Amino acid sequence: MKIVEKDFSISSKHRNQMIDITSQVSSVVSQSGITNGDAIVYCPHTTAAITINENADPSVSHDVLLTLADIVPHHRPGYRHSEGNSDAHCKSSLVGCSELILIKDRTLALGTWQGIFFCEFDGPRHREVMVQIRGE
Amino acid sequence: MKIVEKDFSISSKHRNQMIDITSQVSSVVSQSGITNGDAIVYCPHTTAAITINENADPSVSHDVLLTLADIVPHHRPGYRHSEGNSDAHCKSSLVGCSELILIKDRTLALGTWQGIFFCEFDGPRHREVMVQIRGE
Amino acid sequence: MKIVEKDFSISSKHRNQMIDITSQVSSVVSQSGITNGDAIVYCPHTTAAITINENADPSVSHDVLLTLADIVPHHRPGYRHSEGNSDAHCKSSLVGCSELILIKDRTLALGTWQGIFFCEFDGPRHREVMVQIRGE
Repeated sequence: MKIVEKDFSISSKHRNQMIDITSQVSSVVSQSGITNGDAIVYCPHTTAAITINENADPSVSHDVLLTLADIVPHHRPGYRHSEGNSDAHCKSSLVGCSELILIKDRTLALGTWQGIFFCEFDGPRHREVMVQIRGE
Repeated sequence: MKIVEKDFSISSKHRNQMIDITSQVSSVVSQSGITNGDAIVYCPHTTAAITINENADPSVSHDVLLTLADIVPHHRPGYRHSEGNSDAHCKSSLVGCSELILIKDRTLALGTWQGIFFCEFDGPRHREVMVQIRGE
Repeated sequence: MKIVEKDFSISSKHRNQMIDITSQVSSVVSQSGITNGDAIVYCPHTTAAITINENADPSVSHDVLLTLADIVPHHRPGYRHSEGNSDAHCKSSLVGCSELILIKDRTLALGTWQGIFFCEFDGPRHREVMVQIRGE
């Protein structure tokens, strides 16, 4: 059993944005030398998230962000947090701050249409992504 | 440390459906020979998800699907994805495409009322479920 | 590779409540003797969840619970589950019943503002939290 940990940085350009980080995570996997196991992709921020969804058609990200904006409005009567980003915190807990992907034959075992996304909900900002690969 | 990986197939019958896959995952655990560790249950599809919820009363699945349909309508002004299944992609990111369950004494350490469900959001379809057991 | 498992109990005081359990999880990590690896925090209940969000300002928890109450009303026409807690089951599947946190240098590698919360959606109740630490 081997554990390899590597972080990388990204910069978002909009308040709400889904950034495809599949290639960065794949690089960590290939460099790890691990053949079978799993990868944790973790977001150490409370106004962002990690999700897996279709990355072939960018309309999918658009529609996910549209839906989240509709479910969690930027301003809602009753919000108490004074920084004006309560919506971003709520979206973070709904989507979740990590994903787990299996590794088979030295590659991420994603489905045909799956990509890994960093979800920015309070950008533009400079952000960190943590990746841990475990296996043999 | 041992890693055992096994996939299985299921077929959904409705557009939206929660299918109890607890027994299939339990079988992978018993066959793995692993006593203590964890199981990852992973859905390699972008219009489906994995969740853990009550499986004693089927009304719970009904009410979860009802709530998701209310939060994420099938057709919403502004959706750009042309395949007519934007709602399914959104539900997938809200529920999440994997679950992690502990293994103790060769069995899934689920709570009394917990079962593992494959959530179909764009069926009927033939689907795959990936299970990885890690432990000793 | 070492696996350490420890459960602890908590008591909620309200129907909906986010309880900061970061210090309890941190204790399990320090007592485990594991330097690098990860921690699974798992909720074995179907009307509760685990999330990671800001724990510096309690307004964030307030706003997350407010948003969840708005998205998933306590009573909705069409609910079939007869126990009156369908909303709690739905919130559980939306937020998710576990979180995964990396361990670096014997400590939880949480972001600056991140804390781990047990989310009660059908309290007040006595609840269990399961923690598994894996690593070396």
